[in-house]
Amino acid sequence: MAQVTFINLFEVSDDREKEFLAAWNEVSEYLRAKPGYVRHRLHRALEPDRRFRFVNTAVWESEQHFRAGHDEGFYALVGKPVWKQFPFFPGVFEVYAEGGK
Amino acid sequence: MAQVTFINLFEVSDDREKEFLAAWNEVSEYLRAKPGYVRHRLHRALEPDRRFRFVNTAVWESEQHFRAGHDEGFYALVGKPVWKQFPFFPGVFEVYAEGGK
Repeated sequence: MAQVTFINLFEVSDDREKEFLAAWNEVSEYLRAKPGYVRHRLHRALEPDRRFRFVNTAVWESEQHFRAGHDEGFYALVGKPVWKQFPFFPGVFEVYAEGGK
Repeated sequence: MAQVTFINLFEVSDDREKEFLAAWNEVSEYLRAKPGYVRHRLHRALEPDRRFRFVNTAVWESEQHFRAGHDEGFYALVGKPVWKQFPFFPGVFEVYAEGGK
């Protein structure tokens, strides 16, 4: 089984950042407890004019773990009204290439 | 100086993947040689219907290194006609939160 990376882009307006972070933390804590969850990194844009203010990357042991982790409890959390304010664009990715110096 | 993560989302149609990868590799090799470049990871969507087929994340030693690395030579490369086919959505991010099991 190959690891997968879940990447999610969030539109968050200036005045809603705290609210977003509270909602995101709730979902993140839920998923972190699931089997196969490896790690996440929440990125915040340095340029305030960017469409996507936050980008989360989360690594899972496999696509199966990822799918199983996003269960009814997860959908209950992201079904809360607060999420209507924060359009998000999720996708599951494989690492296709990587390199460094 | 804090590290920054450059995240770039690419729209690439089914039949243009090879062409995209050749163009992307050219730019990536160029940037990799710059001072302050740390590493990159190119992600490919597992779901073919996603808007963004490729997502690159690249870490730089600092925002200053990142800005200096994107010089005239870089803009000459991404000014090539091939890039007109691949809309991209770049941004510079800080790691706001991270965690694992």
